[in-house]
Amino acid sequence: MSLADLPRTIEWIGELDGFVRMIDQTKLPESLEFIDCRDVSTMWHAIKRLSVRGAPAIGIAAAMGAVLAVRDETVSADGLLVKLEDACRYLASSRPTAVNLTWALERMKRVAHAPARENAKAICIRLLNAAKQIRDEDEAACRAIGKYGLPLINDGARILTHCNAGSLATAYYGTALAPIYAAHELGRRVTVFADETRPLLQGARLTAWELQSAGVDVRVLCDGAAASLMQRRQVDLVITGADRIAANGDTANKIGTYGLALLAKAHGIPFYVAAPSSTFDLAIPDGSAIPIEQRDPGEVGIGFGRSTVPEGVPCLNPAFDVTPGNLIAGIVTEIAVVTPVNRETIAKQLNPLQFSR
Amino acid sequence: MSLADLPRTIEWIGELDGFVRMIDQTKLPESLEFIDCRDVSTMWHAIKRLSVRGAPAIGIAAAMGAVLAVRDETVSADGLLVKLEDACRYLASSRPTAVNLTWALERMKRVAHAPARENAKAICIRLLNAAKQIRDEDEAACRAIGKYGLPLINDGARILTHCNAGSLATAYYGTALAPIYAAHELGRRVTVFADETRPLLQGARLTAWELQSAGVDVRVLCDGAAASLMQRRQVDLVITGADRIAANGDTANKIGTYGLALLAKAHGIPFYVAAPSSTFDLAIPDGSAIPIEQRDPGEVGIGFGRSTVPEGVPCLNPAFDVTPGNLIAGIVTEIAVVTPVNRETIAKQLNPLQFSR
Repeated sequence: MSLADLPRTIEWIGELDGFVRMIDQTKLPESLEFIDCRDVSTMWHAIKRLSVRGAPAIGIAAAMGAVLAVRDETVSADGLLVKLEDACRYLASSRPTAVNLTWALERMKRVAHAPARENAKAICIRLLNAAKQIRDEDEAACRAIGKYGLPLINDGARILTHCNAGSLATAYYGTALAPIYAAHELGRRVTVFADETRPLLQGARLTAWELQSAGVDVRVLCDGAAASLMQRRQVDLVITGADRIAANGDTANKIGTYGLALLAKAHGIPFYVAAPSSTFDLAIPDGSAIPIEQRDPGEVGIGFGRSTVPEGVPCLNPAFDVTPGNLIAGIVTEIAVVTPVNRETIAKQLNPLQFSR
Repeated sequence: MSLADLPRTIEWIGELDGFVRMIDQTKLPESLEFIDCRDVSTMWHAIKRLSVRGAPAIGIAAAMGAVLAVRDETVSADGLLVKLEDACRYLASSRPTAVNLTWALERMKRVAHAPARENAKAICIRLLNAAKQIRDEDEAACRAIGKYGLPLINDGARILTHCNAGSLATAYYGTALAPIYAAHELGRRVTVFADETRPLLQGARLTAWELQSAGVDVRVLCDGAAASLMQRRQVDLVITGADRIAANGDTANKIGTYGLALLAKAHGIPFYVAAPSSTFDLAIPDGSAIPIEQRDPGEVGIGFGRSTVPEGVPCLNPAFDVTPGNLIAGIVTEIAVVTPVNRETIAKQLNPLQFSR
């Protein structure tokens, strides 16, 4: 199996009366199963329970979910717009941290309003096309991230990553893993160390699965073993994805990322983030304004139906943490590698991009 | 339930023809079960599979295991000494990193040889008494560690710990948790954040269980969440146990400890180690000489019988890492708090202690 054989994370099957087919990521690596969403509630729950996850992927899922919510509206364009507004509010409530989700929904709302008055059916078709376009653009952005990140991955590189910011987290090809796939395609030898990423083990389950599928050398370690690996000089660089990036470069990503960035700094190892420009939230000055999702403590205290924590002992389960921008050597986007030095310039390019889309 | 109701980790039941009764720590927190060892092979496997674990506790277990190995020797004192030598080599092979295990076995061998010629039965009785004494001394050492560490635990203190260095890791009362128990007994309010400690979850399963049993406020978090907790200024100090401490203070402890020490440093939070003097290995100058146990990759890749890592993907499973002595604010022993400043002086006290015992 090669990367080309990897199934797409999320696709719209058929025409307007079709459905969304997604890999059910809760079932990996034990089995590759798909979940079909034909209504917005199914999509909301699929996002909430992480059947689909990864900031770019849930943006696409939300956009397609919005289409599912309004496609049966045939009465009036005004009725559709009200319904869309409700659906977007509902979908946005599924997960608070990743900005790509609200970014995609805002874009869908703009699409519904523009350009001139049409009937509901025509707007639905336009919305479906927009959702498909968000998906296609994400795949293109991932390939561009691969291109811009490629110079970071030398032959023989040993890369540590956290959680899953691969093909499964995006339309296809990934963000943090994109430069790795690009290097692998060119025949460069790479070794990826995948943090298992507690509590939900996206690194062990998903990153390991897709890298193995693509023929990339991958090894899994417990999150707590990363420092020791760095101490033994077995890591050349760290690269992760992102769920939301503030104007100053502060980056929310899966819990554990901030610690990794500090450990990388202590060992003189460069720490990179890779994300499409839709992950930037230039409306907020720094990471303190990023809402951090607190998930069910049972994700920590119950493993596969067995209690790993005594009954009555509280568990903390913040899903994300915030890495200060000054710990990040560069943010690899589809436009450029954003560094503390060029951030201001790039922000000017991102700004119109964010709001024109 | 209070700390006083906690069952003892390991005890010799009866006389020379008795047996060792230990809490089966693999069963916690779901059920409190005991494992009875009547022969040395059962003990070896109990240590290997972590039914009993924690550096001081496995020292006691090994000493008692040595008694089990030789107690039926009635032929000759010489035969017993040969048998003891074999048993000690066998028991030492169960786990390589914690020095307390070899320390206890060396002590048993010295006991067997001294003072004058006796028959096998008399030596066996002396060995049993020595094993019981190791157990009793460990409990006394833990209480002294509690006393020396008490000034670190102010009223309202929020303490982060990793793995289990509590009552379950020792004869009773613990090392890292001893100052916490001592403060709790004085009515000081303490909150303990217990890293769950992948892969085997000793923090979630054991530390949470015994602290809850003792009425101490405890919360469990994934290992990767510790940095975020520190960033939000919710941790006043970090304290862990140790499996082996080199002459320069470099400390081997559960994988993940080194990373915590770096994170504590980055946030200006003091990082302490607590361990009895039997954990010092003054024969080695620094941590590079400490053997690191590599455990079964299945502990990482299989959770409760289900695969969390795709088949064929290798898992790294180092059981320990080494924290450089210069990251450690102090090592709380039963003699004093050892700091980089007084280390030389204390070492002189430890040295005769180590070799006279």
